[in-house]
Amino acid sequence: MIVIHADMQIKPEKREAFLQTVQPLVAGSQAEEGCLRYTLTQDVANLNRFTMIEVWADQDAVDRHNASSHFTGFFKVSTDFFALPLKAEKFTAADV
Amino acid sequence: MIVIHADMQIKPEKREAFLQTVQPLVAGSQAEEGCLRYTLTQDVANLNRFTMIEVWADQDAVDRHNASSHFTGFFKVSTDFFALPLKAEKFTAADV
Repeated sequence: MIVIHADMQIKPEKREAFLQTVQPLVAGSQAEEGCLRYTLTQDVANLNRFTMIEVWADQDAVDRHNASSHFTGFFKVSTDFFALPLKAEKFTAADV
Repeated sequence: MIVIHADMQIKPEKREAFLQTVQPLVAGSQAEEGCLRYTLTQDVANLNRFTMIEVWADQDAVDRHNASSHFTGFFKVSTDFFALPLKAEKFTAADV
């Protein structure tokens, strides 16, 4: 499996636009083959900091995801939302 | 490394008590040797659903964490906060 934690620091004034724009990305990703988890969370201590918690069956699923229209479409319009560049930690993972 | 996603569905009327009680657990865990990440997040789609995103150096660090007073102390008093039993997914993980 592949686990990704994608941290996104959003400009406060772009928070609502981000939350609207990200919805098709979340729904589209959750419907993908090989998507085991795709949850948008916000940090309790900083409500403009979001983390996408992602679990994928394998790298092929991640590759399909990265090529999907909901993924590329989101990043075409979202650049201006970010206060800092998106930062992702990515792991190869196996169930314990 | 060990990655844990601990999902907690909290009773709406216990939300504030949970947020107060969990603070020493978060601070204590972040200060532990071998703790690489310990972030309390809330689901954007369900504000009573929380996920602790945890990354630990190794199983020894997880064992020390599970035996720590901030961990055992939290679970002594928090049982009544949970609308559903805590559900954790746990992975052995390596950086990609």
